[in-house]
Amino acid sequence: MNKRVGKQTIETPSKPRIIATASIVGPKEGEGPLKDYFDIILEDDLNGKDTYEKAESSMMYTAVNEVIKKANFKEENIDYLLAGDLLNQLTSACFAAKDMDIPFIGLFGACSTMTESLAMGSLMIDGGYANHVIAATSSHFSSAERQFRFPLEYGSQRPPTAQWTVTGSGAMLLGREGNFPYISYVTMGKVKDYGVNDVNNMGEAMAPAAVDTIAQHLRDTGRTPDYYDIIATGDLGKVGKRITKELLLEHGFELKDNYIDCGDEIFEHERQKTNSGGSGCGCSAVVDCGYIYKNMLNGKFKRVLLVSTGALLSSTSCFQGLNIPGIAHAVAVEI
Amino acid sequence: MNKRVGKQTIETPSKPRIIATASIVGPKEGEGPLKDYFDIILEDDLNGKDTYEKAESSMMYTAVNEVIKKANFKEENIDYLLAGDLLNQLTSACFAAKDMDIPFIGLFGACSTMTESLAMGSLMIDGGYANHVIAATSSHFSSAERQFRFPLEYGSQRPPTAQWTVTGSGAMLLGREGNFPYISYVTMGKVKDYGVNDVNNMGEAMAPAAVDTIAQHLRDTGRTPDYYDIIATGDLGKVGKRITKELLLEHGFELKDNYIDCGDEIFEHERQKTNSGGSGCGCSAVVDCGYIYKNMLNGKFKRVLLVSTGALLSSTSCFQGLNIPGIAHAVAVEI
Repeated sequence: MNKRVGKQTIETPSKPRIIATASIVGPKEGEGPLKDYFDIILEDDLNGKDTYEKAESSMMYTAVNEVIKKANFKEENIDYLLAGDLLNQLTSACFAAKDMDIPFIGLFGACSTMTESLAMGSLMIDGGYANHVIAATSSHFSSAERQFRFPLEYGSQRPPTAQWTVTGSGAMLLGREGNFPYISYVTMGKVKDYGVNDVNNMGEAMAPAAVDTIAQHLRDTGRTPDYYDIIATGDLGKVGKRITKELLLEHGFELKDNYIDCGDEIFEHERQKTNSGGSGCGCSAVVDCGYIYKNMLNGKFKRVLLVSTGALLSSTSCFQGLNIPGIAHAVAVEI
Repeated sequence: MNKRVGKQTIETPSKPRIIATASIVGPKEGEGPLKDYFDIILEDDLNGKDTYEKAESSMMYTAVNEVIKKANFKEENIDYLLAGDLLNQLTSACFAAKDMDIPFIGLFGACSTMTESLAMGSLMIDGGYANHVIAATSSHFSSAERQFRFPLEYGSQRPPTAQWTVTGSGAMLLGREGNFPYISYVTMGKVKDYGVNDVNNMGEAMAPAAVDTIAQHLRDTGRTPDYYDIIATGDLGKVGKRITKELLLEHGFELKDNYIDCGDEIFEHERQKTNSGGSGCGCSAVVDCGYIYKNMLNGKFKRVLLVSTGALLSSTSCFQGLNIPGIAHAVAVEI
């Protein structure tokens, strides 16, 4: 059976369900406008650990265990964990998986990892390869800042286009049963390089990938933007969101008020000094698992398009003068 | 349709085929015992680039293009590229994908990435989600050495248990057509931590994961080790290979002469001073794509079990005193 739709989109006719989600965030995210939607808000962003990397990994471990608990499952009911993060060699995901007795499929799409893992997980359910899987990702402001930018002790100034890496982890448990939000289509994205090389302007670097994936998804499915109650890009921030709207117009698609960006929503930028907005794998993860999923359960949103967006850079690639390509994967969720 | 077999294994009843493979290696690998099986042997391990990281990425780009050419395809015939590597944030794979017009699914399993990408790719073919995909990975001695260990200029001494990262990239093109070797089963592995923390002894760190995955695969499928003409672990080297044989005996499985390790085979260790053997994502990639695949095509091997093995460490996790967990994914290929 061929489940391909158009050029780049996959249909999942068995409708893999998102049975439960869990989200955990740091103190700053817990003071933001979406605070009521998160399951766990940490008082200490070290989460009792002695390093930020261990703290991030412990957050993912907690999110995965929390989603298992919410669904009244046990670890042994989960066939696969599909997870990844921003740290070198997926330190956060690998060390979270180490303490679980669940087969592990490591994924990397930078901050697009929430929809990458959700997409691949839903294919494993739809194809009959698994009964239950968990898709998860995480990021941490302090582990990302010192890995990609500067030692925290410098107290570097941040330009207006800079974003604030979200401290958080989100996990989604997928299966076939129940009347839960389900995945109808998946559109895996291409790597797009429009020549941006400013590490303090990730929104501009990622916007072309978001545009390409959203436009392709709409062309492949024959849907228009207003089909969706919400189209949510991952972490383009205010700058990238504006570019995305402009570029999509050139493709003939007008995004209206149903278009949000998770990085724009998660902080109150003036008060919280988050400049262009939130970023990091954890950004779309906790907004999708918290705000969007819970509003699907209560009937406010019925059809959403999740489009997590990733900036594909390493400190090595930047030092060597390479640009920052972007990628975006889209997953349509409906109820 | 449920395609799960036993606890951890997946059957692929539509038999996704490996239509073609391509391998590219550096000069040292091109002087090793398997040199006649590689498609391209570089004379210069910088491949005309100005950094080792760019050289590694260019090798993956070449391997992917070569496999497309060998199958008489064009880029537009490939639905997805599933790829990953050892470099921080998959620098090699992301920048190779940037120059292709193919949707990209980034994977990370350290040196287990060849079978991780082959496994996930075969599910995409089997499930009807794709008509053709490419699974690829790469590693480079000099990019790995300076990222994980010491600056090359130090000329560090290497203990007998140390391994030599293979400079190479392998790509497999999967589809449904033709009388080619096909995938029958996939067993995705768990992360195993047996307390090893010596970065110069990866074989010991990864062996428990190889043992766990091989034993689980055999239990799930009801096969015995002698079902296979070849069982090939990825890069355990001489040290890890010996441990794997010993530990599997405790599970009741005796591996005989049909058991090889790609890292053990690729170099002539005394002459080439490669100590315990080859390692890196590229190690099992080029041995699987070269030596094993070509010997399946000529009828020497009919049933093989590929078990690439990964050590899940980052320099950060090591500096922070964490152990080195391992992971292994198994793919059964038959003709």
